[in-house]
Amino acid sequence: MKLMKKSERILLAHGSGGKLSRQLVEEVILPGIGVAGAVNLDDAAVLQLHGMAGRAKGPRLAFTTDSYVVSPIFFPGGNIGDLAINGTVNDLAMMGARPGFVTVGLVIEEGFALDELEAALLSMRKRALEAGVTIVAGDTKVVERGKADRIFISTSGIGLIPDGREVSGSLLQPGDRILVSGTIGDHGMAVLSQREGLEFRSDIVSDSAPLNSLVEEIFETGAEIHALRDPTRGGLAATLNEFATGSGVGILVEESAVPLEPSVSRACDLLGLDPFYVANEGKLVVSVSETGAEQVLQAMQGHPQGGRAAAIGTASSDHSGTVILQTRVGGKRILDMPTGEQLPRIC
Amino acid sequence: MKLMKKSERILLAHGSGGKLSRQLVEEVILPGIGVAGAVNLDDAAVLQLHGMAGRAKGPRLAFTTDSYVVSPIFFPGGNIGDLAINGTVNDLAMMGARPGFVTVGLVIEEGFALDELEAALLSMRKRALEAGVTIVAGDTKVVERGKADRIFISTSGIGLIPDGREVSGSLLQPGDRILVSGTIGDHGMAVLSQREGLEFRSDIVSDSAPLNSLVEEIFETGAEIHALRDPTRGGLAATLNEFATGSGVGILVEESAVPLEPSVSRACDLLGLDPFYVANEGKLVVSVSETGAEQVLQAMQGHPQGGRAAAIGTASSDHSGTVILQTRVGGKRILDMPTGEQLPRIC
Repeated sequence: MKLMKKSERILLAHGSGGKLSRQLVEEVILPGIGVAGAVNLDDAAVLQLHGMAGRAKGPRLAFTTDSYVVSPIFFPGGNIGDLAINGTVNDLAMMGARPGFVTVGLVIEEGFALDELEAALLSMRKRALEAGVTIVAGDTKVVERGKADRIFISTSGIGLIPDGREVSGSLLQPGDRILVSGTIGDHGMAVLSQREGLEFRSDIVSDSAPLNSLVEEIFETGAEIHALRDPTRGGLAATLNEFATGSGVGILVEESAVPLEPSVSRACDLLGLDPFYVANEGKLVVSVSETGAEQVLQAMQGHPQGGRAAAIGTASSDHSGTVILQTRVGGKRILDMPTGEQLPRIC
Repeated sequence: MKLMKKSERILLAHGSGGKLSRQLVEEVILPGIGVAGAVNLDDAAVLQLHGMAGRAKGPRLAFTTDSYVVSPIFFPGGNIGDLAINGTVNDLAMMGARPGFVTVGLVIEEGFALDELEAALLSMRKRALEAGVTIVAGDTKVVERGKADRIFISTSGIGLIPDGREVSGSLLQPGDRILVSGTIGDHGMAVLSQREGLEFRSDIVSDSAPLNSLVEEIFETGAEIHALRDPTRGGLAATLNEFATGSGVGILVEESAVPLEPSVSRACDLLGLDPFYVANEGKLVVSVSETGAEQVLQAMQGHPQGGRAAAIGTASSDHSGTVILQTRVGGKRILDMPTGEQLPRIC
């Protein structure tokens, strides 16, 4: 059923990271770009560089892109520049790659203040240094007043994937343990609180952070890592659903095990939002074979980006393709893929 | 002198590809991104991939990015999708690279018509097939109505640079011949005519085209190629000035030798524009040692993208850093770097 066609116009919800986003990609973008495109159009791809070395197979290169349109561009704990670097670093890291080089495309609205541009650039510089990536190329376009919303930033990144690392949302195995690297919902609520001018604002800060060094720690354990993903747009619920459908497994999540800041929990309650659907920008979800899970958990907890890491669930061959939440009160409910618009322009 | 600081706000002219664009990059963007950034922030970079092969030096990878904000998005001879693929293919080709993989970032305004999106995507598909590149990853963001102008597209590309190719705007030698692959100003005037609804519209079409196969022909000659560039924003004048200042040579250009469509010439006259400053999207300028110039010119003329190629000038050790135009009427004038706003949102 081509739900997409019913609207015939792009809706905000098409950018939400949920079902409508997927429909836009699957029913319009992929068929449109067609055979010239890859089989999927994720924000990241693994390229095998043939004929580049003395080896039968060349090195594997990860290549990713993301556009950032967050509003407001400055929010508690960061700004659009932090997101643009950390997001691309994390996309690469989630493929098992070591991020190396980043390009930056700026679309700036006429009249944008130079000092705000400078602040965003400074953040990019700091985050690039922190993550150990080099910004190697850039492009700047300016559009008339009213034709963009201050500044949009597109970043692309490349990195090499060390031999032996093979992670994908389609590789989960029944029995896998699902771990999350810390509290959920912080980024989305930080942006939203700033946007709405809510009084809980000062308590909540974005978790935007580069995760590549945490990923190295995880692989360092030698455990069997099957999948890695940063739960950004669509939140933890979207990532877990992508894992379940991508791998044909069921996932059972223990709600009480999922780390959550009390301030984020309160803000979600107040606004009627479910933190499972709120974006994160400095967290990862890892699916690891049962035998290595404890080791990975400890490695994460010993890392600055993983202090509050927790084992939150298990993959199984039951209820394949579905994520089930064991709630705090003892019941069970399906944790569905987010549908329409959750929180637009959160990244 | 920090002219940039005087305005303290971004002006349209900062996106024009001329002096103010350069100032924005040199005085704000580079200092802002700082030591994490490369020494320059061109839209393309060459990366030496160390430790990737059985060779002391790994393969050289070109990595580029560009954002497209052209208005209107459909114009005679193409649309924003054509530009986004051809532009990135050409950025790679101008580094001597063989374009391989492209990523696409879409920022779409809420309410944008699906059939227009589909038309732009179809163009991207066709151009990718034509150039032999694979679109491997993508990202889509949607912003509220009035917060963007229909659609902006960011593309990044990577390609391998075959051994022995060493081209740069800083490598021109006195005695080099400067060749252009065809008529100038077509793209800019096609977009402008569409925008202004001018009556000469039907005569002028954008030259948007992938130039990678033409570049292969040029290298195939074995001639000593020093510099390659596609004269986009800022036109032929900007490219020649970048060559002159980058290499510390003077360039003398014969105005009568520069190919120009009569319709473009008439439109420029009518609007008081100088075709040397108008953007091209399917032309290249090559600086080649005198001995190989004739061979390269013939190779270009035998290629579909170079039928009207011409030798237009010479590099010398005189008037270093300056481009001088030998005019049709016999005089000489300096062909300066474009200053402020020429034609905004031409690409």
